[in-house]
Amino acid sequence: MPYHSTPLDLAFHALSDPTRRAVVSRLAEGEVPVSVLAAPFDMALPSFVQHLRVLEDCGLIISEKRGRSRWCRLERGRFDEAVNWMEAERRRAAEQLDRLEVYLDKREESDDGKTF
Amino acid sequence: MPYHSTPLDLAFHALSDPTRRAVVSRLAEGEVPVSVLAAPFDMALPSFVQHLRVLEDCGLIISEKRGRSRWCRLERGRFDEAVNWMEAERRRAAEQLDRLEVYLDKREESDDGKTF
Repeated sequence: MPYHSTPLDLAFHALSDPTRRAVVSRLAEGEVPVSVLAAPFDMALPSFVQHLRVLEDCGLIISEKRGRSRWCRLERGRFDEAVNWMEAERRRAAEQLDRLEVYLDKREESDDGKTF
Repeated sequence: MPYHSTPLDLAFHALSDPTRRAVVSRLAEGEVPVSVLAAPFDMALPSFVQHLRVLEDCGLIISEKRGRSRWCRLERGRFDEAVNWMEAERRRAAEQLDRLEVYLDKREESDDGKTF
């Protein structure tokens, strides 16, 4: 998969699906068994498990067998990595706008001082 | 595309590619013509333009013809929508952990008070 090779590629790919985002939302509230996680989704279990696999393969969730149930939980490290990337870009875009405003203000001041 | 139907689906899909993330990073520093944007990428222009199209179709960037050049800029609204979703989930996960800690602390206190 040349286009989904880094952990960040895979994490964003995983989040591009509404079912998988809903799973992340549910797991943000705490860990649950797969059966509980799957219950609200109108989907065959194998399809649902496939979504879990995509989330687990990219490290966004971790699943663990406990007795007869498999429990899932959010893996915050990978999730943080993705949100940190986005926040950093948003900050850079905001800083760029600030610089642009300062520049425009200065130009306006310098124009005001001009004798025509 | 049943799996990429909402703006958020499309935005995360767009961000799942390293070239497209690099374009977002570059545009976070300000708008540039396509020729300048494409220069650092070791990629045929049609392939690069295809990446820009994915970013533009999901509303993460906007391009505009000015004279003989096409300029691109980041569309912060769509980007914010994606980062806001992630931040909200991260906050919920953190609050859940806080609640769990409070619960465990209380249980510990109550256990301490017990007479065995």
